Amino acid sequence: MKLLEDRIRADGQVLDGQVLKLDSFLNHQIDVELLTELGREFYRLFQADGVTKLLTIEASGIAVACAAGQFFRVPVVFAKKSRGKNLTGEAYSSLVESFTHGCVNNISVSKSFLCPEDRVLLMDDFLANGAALRGLISLVEQAGATLVGAGVCVEKAFQPGGDELRAQGVRIESLARIKAMSPKTGVFFC
Amino acid sequence: MKLLEDRIRADGQVLDGQVLKLDSFLNHQIDVELLTELGREFYRLFQADGVTKLLTIEASGIAVACAAGQFFRVPVVFAKKSRGKNLTGEAYSSLVESFTHGCVNNISVSKSFLCPEDRVLLMDDFLANGAALRGLISLVEQAGATLVGAGVCVEKAFQPGGDELRAQGVRIESLARIKAMSPKTGVFFC
Repeated sequence: MKLLEDRIRADGQVLDGQVLKLDSFLNHQIDVELLTELGREFYRLFQADGVTKLLTIEASGIAVACAAGQFFRVPVVFAKKSRGKNLTGEAYSSLVESFTHGCVNNISVSKSFLCPEDRVLLMDDFLANGAALRGLISLVEQAGATLVGAGVCVEKAFQPGGDELRAQGVRIESLARIKAMSPKTGVFFC
Repeated sequence: MKLLEDRIRADGQVLDGQVLKLDSFLNHQIDVELLTELGREFYRLFQADGVTKLLTIEASGIAVACAAGQFFRVPVVFAKKSRGKNLTGEAYSSLVESFTHGCVNNISVSKSFLCPEDRVLLMDDFLANGAALRGLISLVEQAGATLVGAGVCVEKAFQPGGDELRAQGVRIESLARIKAMSPKTGVFFC
């Protein structure tokens, strides 16, 4: 998606260690109008698939999923990384290793919000090793729901997550796919 | 705001220990269309105040702030609860005790995203003891920015946070103010 690629070129910062900082518009400061356009594009890609629920993971996935939710007009559910007093009763859960934070989170979703009749579209800001999407897929499977696919803003295509998940039959639509990047040369798209 | 009060009456659950669960539409599963209406109302309340930035805290504040951001057409910034690889450089930070999770978070915002020229509206889903808002106010003060006020979806008016902050001169607009609640009687609004 040219709009997003142009913005990454203009405002993204490549740091050492394969880190791409998009925090001026995607995941710390948020350009709501840009996200609305990304949400519209996810809707165009998946509108024929009978999606009944958008599932993401806190925190930065929430803005992306809510932007798409305006068009899909279905509930957004976000998996929580820790269980507060509000998450009572039964929950589906799975372990997710965070590339960004260097830790393992036990993510969970209340059983009230995923059911066997649901057709679930996963949403996230980044796809790298695929750990977050795999954790969310596990929640969908535990609920007996149908996985429609995953909509991702930025895929680091030089990391294995996207290809591995596609090889398992998961439909993944990434709005920007990065072939290579470095602090010196910047970002190259697929 | 009647729309929100009605929804709290219909779908809220009061648990022991002064916990109000609104997770079927506000902070776990999200009704995006409802949040859009809440965002529109926040805009109505603060549209004359020259807001240049909406500031919230992950995770459930993000959906509320993004909904309002559609109307204000200014960037949303969310304070992070932990510092990942992406939050490099200088940041403003403050300590916030979480009522829901029973822990203390060191919240932070990159100095790139709050500046002295900013007129900041704080946004959050809940206001109880005011810890989150106080933490956000500290970030605004550290940046030398102007605090416009705070837009809150649900205020537990029987807890002291709202009144204490108003006594300090902070303009707080809560769309639903709860006077009292219990698992037996449900919720009473101010």
